[in-house]
Amino acid sequence: MPTAALIIIGNEILSGKFADENGPYLVPRLRQLGCDLGRIVVIPDEPDVIAREVRACSEAFTHVFTSGGVGPTHDDVTFPSVALAFGVPVVRHPTLEAILRSRLGDACNDAALRMAEIPEGADLWWDGLVRYPLIVMKNVAIFPGVPALFKLKFEAVAHRFAGEPVSTERVWTSLTEPEIADCLTEAAGRWPGVAIGSYPRFELTPPKVLVTLESRDLAALAAGAAFVRAGIADVD
Amino acid sequence: MPTAALIIIGNEILSGKFADENGPYLVPRLRQLGCDLGRIVVIPDEPDVIAREVRACSEAFTHVFTSGGVGPTHDDVTFPSVALAFGVPVVRHPTLEAILRSRLGDACNDAALRMAEIPEGADLWWDGLVRYPLIVMKNVAIFPGVPALFKLKFEAVAHRFAGEPVSTERVWTSLTEPEIADCLTEAAGRWPGVAIGSYPRFELTPPKVLVTLESRDLAALAAGAAFVRAGIADVD
Repeated sequence: MPTAALIIIGNEILSGKFADENGPYLVPRLRQLGCDLGRIVVIPDEPDVIAREVRACSEAFTHVFTSGGVGPTHDDVTFPSVALAFGVPVVRHPTLEAILRSRLGDACNDAALRMAEIPEGADLWWDGLVRYPLIVMKNVAIFPGVPALFKLKFEAVAHRFAGEPVSTERVWTSLTEPEIADCLTEAAGRWPGVAIGSYPRFELTPPKVLVTLESRDLAALAAGAAFVRAGIADVD
Repeated sequence: MPTAALIIIGNEILSGKFADENGPYLVPRLRQLGCDLGRIVVIPDEPDVIAREVRACSEAFTHVFTSGGVGPTHDDVTFPSVALAFGVPVVRHPTLEAILRSRLGDACNDAALRMAEIPEGADLWWDGLVRYPLIVMKNVAIFPGVPALFKLKFEAVAHRFAGEPVSTERVWTSLTEPEIADCLTEAAGRWPGVAIGSYPRFELTPPKVLVTLESRDLAALAAGAAFVRAGIADVD
C-alpha cells in the first residue's frame, strides 16, 4: 500500500502568523484515498533543514508532499532545497519560463523567474489540464503553500496516490483503560494485521473510552472487533 | 534564546480520527513566552520512529515536548521509546507507583502500573502542586495527549521555557511578490537579525501581500520596517 509524508515548510506556521490548513485538508483526504500518511512535519525556511527532511522522507515513504516556499521572494527556498536533497543543481525550465513570461508580460523580472528554477531532472505533471504544472522531483511532489492553491493542485493529481482504503470499527466502553488493557493487548497479539487504538474521553460525563480497530483485512477486522466488543463493550 | 520542538505521537492524528489540538495551542503560547518553536512533527506509535525523533530533537533544541502515548494500553509506548532514545531502561518509579495505588485502589493492575514505568534517570516536576508530576527525561518533557491534560500540565511548567518575546511589524502592499522581491532581498541583507516573510493573499480582492518583519532587536526592526514600508507600502 502507498505511504506518504507531508513536509510543511514555513516560518509563518511555526511562529503562529498563519495556521496550517494543508495538513487538516490532507489527513482525511489521504485516508479516503487509501494512502497511509506516516509523518507530518513543520519546518522553517532553511535549506539544510528542508534538504535533510526531504531526503529522509523520500527514502522512507512512497510519496512525499511539500507545502510552501515556491514563490518569488527571498524566503521561498523549496526548489533549491529539494535540489540540494538530491545533489542536483536548479535549472531554469524553458516551459515554465515561457508560461511565466506569457502570463506576467513586462512584470516577469528575475525574481518571478526564480519560480521557473527547479531541480534538474524534475518532472512536470499536467494532470487535469491545469494552467501551471505540478513540479515533482523523483517521489517528491512540490505544492504551493497557499491553501486554495494546495487543494486545487492536490485534487488534480490525487488519483496518482490512491491505494485500498482502510476500514474502521469503533467500540465504546465505560470501563477504564487499565480495565480494558489486557483485552486489547490480547486482541493486538491475535490479529496483528489489525491496528487497535484506545482513546480515553475524560471530557464526557461519565468518562468513556473509544477503542478503534482498523485494517484492510475485513475478516480479521470483523473477528478482532467481535472479540473486543465481547470483552469490553457496555455502551453504544 | 530558548528553542523548542514538539513531537506529537499518535496514529489517531495521522489517520484523521482526532485532530491535533496541542500544536495549535502550543504555537501561540510559545511565541508569547519568547521560546522559538523550530519543529513540529507528527509520528506514529512506533518505538523506533519515536526514539529516533526524540534523540535528534533533544540534540538540536533547548526543549523538546512530546504529546501522547503515556496511558496504560498497548498503544502507549512513549516512555519506553524515550528510554530507547537515551539508551536507558524503564524503571518503575516508587513515587508514581504510590500515587497510582492510592488513586486507583484495587483497580491498580499491571496495566495501570505501566504509567509508573519511566526512563531511568527521568525527573519529576511538581510545579504548581499538581496531583501528578510531569515526567522529564533530560530536556524532553513528556506530556499527555488529551488536550485538556496537555494544557493543564503545560501551564504548570510554562515559566521554565520563557525567553524574550519577538516583536513583529506588518506591512501590506497591493504590489505583487515579483515586484517587491528586490526590496525584501535588500532589506534581508541589510538587517540580518530581522526575519522577513512575504505572504501573498490571493483570496483578497484585489490581492495583497502581507510582509512581516520580526526581531528581538527593536532598533534593527524599526529600521528594516521603515525601509520596507518606504519601498513597497501602498495600502493599510
